[in-house]
Amino acid sequence: MFFSGESNLALPCARFKVTYHLWGSQNEAYAKAQDICLEQTVEFPDDLVPDGVIREHIIGHIESFGRCGEDEYEAVISYAEPVAAGELTQLLNVVFGNISIKPDIRVTNLELPDSLLRGFKGPRFGRDGLREVLRIEDRPLLFTALKPMGLKAAELAELAYTFALGGIDIIKDDHGLSNQPFASYAERVRICAAAVGRANAKTGRHAIYMPNITAPFNEIIDRARLAKEAGAGGYLICPGLTGLDTMRAIAEDDELGLPIISHPAFQGSYVLGRSGISHQVIFGQIVRLAGGDATIFPNFGGRFSFSREECEGIVKGATMPMCQLKPIFPCPAGGMSLSSVPEAIKVYGRDVIFLVGGGLFKHGPDLLENIKYFKTIIEG
Amino acid sequence: MFFSGESNLALPCARFKVTYHLWGSQNEAYAKAQDICLEQTVEFPDDLVPDGVIREHIIGHIESFGRCGEDEYEAVISYAEPVAAGELTQLLNVVFGNISIKPDIRVTNLELPDSLLRGFKGPRFGRDGLREVLRIEDRPLLFTALKPMGLKAAELAELAYTFALGGIDIIKDDHGLSNQPFASYAERVRICAAAVGRANAKTGRHAIYMPNITAPFNEIIDRARLAKEAGAGGYLICPGLTGLDTMRAIAEDDELGLPIISHPAFQGSYVLGRSGISHQVIFGQIVRLAGGDATIFPNFGGRFSFSREECEGIVKGATMPMCQLKPIFPCPAGGMSLSSVPEAIKVYGRDVIFLVGGGLFKHGPDLLENIKYFKTIIEG
Repeated sequence: MFFSGESNLALPCARFKVTYHLWGSQNEAYAKAQDICLEQTVEFPDDLVPDGVIREHIIGHIESFGRCGEDEYEAVISYAEPVAAGELTQLLNVVFGNISIKPDIRVTNLELPDSLLRGFKGPRFGRDGLREVLRIEDRPLLFTALKPMGLKAAELAELAYTFALGGIDIIKDDHGLSNQPFASYAERVRICAAAVGRANAKTGRHAIYMPNITAPFNEIIDRARLAKEAGAGGYLICPGLTGLDTMRAIAEDDELGLPIISHPAFQGSYVLGRSGISHQVIFGQIVRLAGGDATIFPNFGGRFSFSREECEGIVKGATMPMCQLKPIFPCPAGGMSLSSVPEAIKVYGRDVIFLVGGGLFKHGPDLLENIKYFKTIIEG
Repeated sequence: MFFSGESNLALPCARFKVTYHLWGSQNEAYAKAQDICLEQTVEFPDDLVPDGVIREHIIGHIESFGRCGEDEYEAVISYAEPVAAGELTQLLNVVFGNISIKPDIRVTNLELPDSLLRGFKGPRFGRDGLREVLRIEDRPLLFTALKPMGLKAAELAELAYTFALGGIDIIKDDHGLSNQPFASYAERVRICAAAVGRANAKTGRHAIYMPNITAPFNEIIDRARLAKEAGAGGYLICPGLTGLDTMRAIAEDDELGLPIISHPAFQGSYVLGRSGISHQVIFGQIVRLAGGDATIFPNFGGRFSFSREECEGIVKGATMPMCQLKPIFPCPAGGMSLSSVPEAIKVYGRDVIFLVGGGLFKHGPDLLENIKYFKTIIEG
């Protein structure tokens, strides 16, 4: 042999489980499951994998395998916890790194042992913590975005003031507002945070402004700091653009500690095909591992393509038991009109944040009236 | 109106162009193109977009639209350069952020003006720079990986020594080697770098060791530093796990300055469906924007699913003119056997790095002999 094959893996060790849907004949699907066990760990020809610890513990184990549809099979594969190294980056690599490049494989559930989950702080606020910040006990939350891109910072701040005055709970930057020269981050964030503060002083409410801190690697921490110092109440992050672990690091940073809302930009490719990662996992479970307190996704029936069942999958991932990781808010969005809110309440219940952007402008010519109408629907 | 709609956008401004393939009838595809112009910029209802600068310059322009197949159309859409804010994160957001969630849209080419490209340093070494580091003028480069995961660090170092002694040019960590307790990063990197150094002293060659620095946000810079101090010759990074901009930041950091090879883990979902981003763009052009000096991808005919045409697309993206951004090496990999190398040389020519991992062990029982055979094929 080329090496002794002994390993320092400490035994016994916990294992984490990943559910995969696999397409093909039964034999093809089972071969895919066997291949995943190698591909995601040793990435080595089966006949050369050393016997002993590496073969018995390092490579994945097929825990179960069964048919779940026409030419569709479900395999649960477990991996030794130390393989994930306690890192979100390496955990995601084991779950779906190389096999993201192989067709007809979809991650549909993560079952992570408490010992692994305890290594992640997860959402700092979660659903209940965000309600405390806003001092709103049990109704759905009202959420909107500052747009359109291209406006001067002063006009965005004026909109922020009107939104807060009218009763919106969370006012975020549109996720395309970055640090453009026509409305720079520093100017925009300072005056928008101040505008929401002025409105709160008038209304007695506790609305918050969440700037978009999606930014280059070496600037994002400074943007978060500036936002907090300016009086912003949280951060909007697109982890598909920054890297998921960047969001986690910000969520776990005690000095930056503000609520975080995760935006799905650049992540749609994981869910659109049948190969990929399920809505529940990428917009639910992974957002929680990465410290999001709420997860934005396009609601069914809007201008995107998610089904009601897929949206319910996200709610499941956002709230299912994951050791100490707090449940988080689902934020259906994406071309929601005010008229769709009552139907959506039936689906999501009261633990939901409704993100209505353009729809708030479309309802009628008076923005304050539109906001009041939005509030009436929510409270009624 | 809700706002004046004036904008501080400085005019005139350059525009960057993105080519999209769109599926559907001609009317559906054209409607998609119109929708992209709004969705990727103002994200606002068309009838409410303010006239003037925002309507004329901030929203995308359809520069061309034509049929390119059965129910398949190609639209070139341009965006004002300042909308990208000089940031890779925001540039990617404009190119494909929200529309990653909409079906039947694929990014197939980026045409970025010199003024935008000059804001990126791109690959520090590029193809020619990496050749200078290795002092190899014109043959294909030999590249392999330390594996299988689970081995003790000392055994990985022994392999690294043998690889370098036998004549491999670049020896990387397998991309699943992170900071597992059974072969910690610090120990592994120090002894593997030393092992390759010892082999070089014996052979007179200039082989390099490239540890995998894919790591959490707050650890990756320290890992890169440790690697450089230990005498490593470059960095392996999976930008799909760290975020693309993390790789860019490391590439642009003068103190860390070593060659970077980009690994495609967790990025396959962008290319597998018809919605997504083309091979040329995600594994070619974007890797260069993000500072990779070489781009690993699964070769056609291996254990993955890429076609020869798709691999040729990556070579195009790795080498096409992009202002001052250096051309980079394609690294076909993914279950390449030694016997497939001669055919691959016909396709890729001499400016290529062949990554043969498990195949190097499979050829015969003597690793040094296998490496010699690999060298003979390359040099012959």
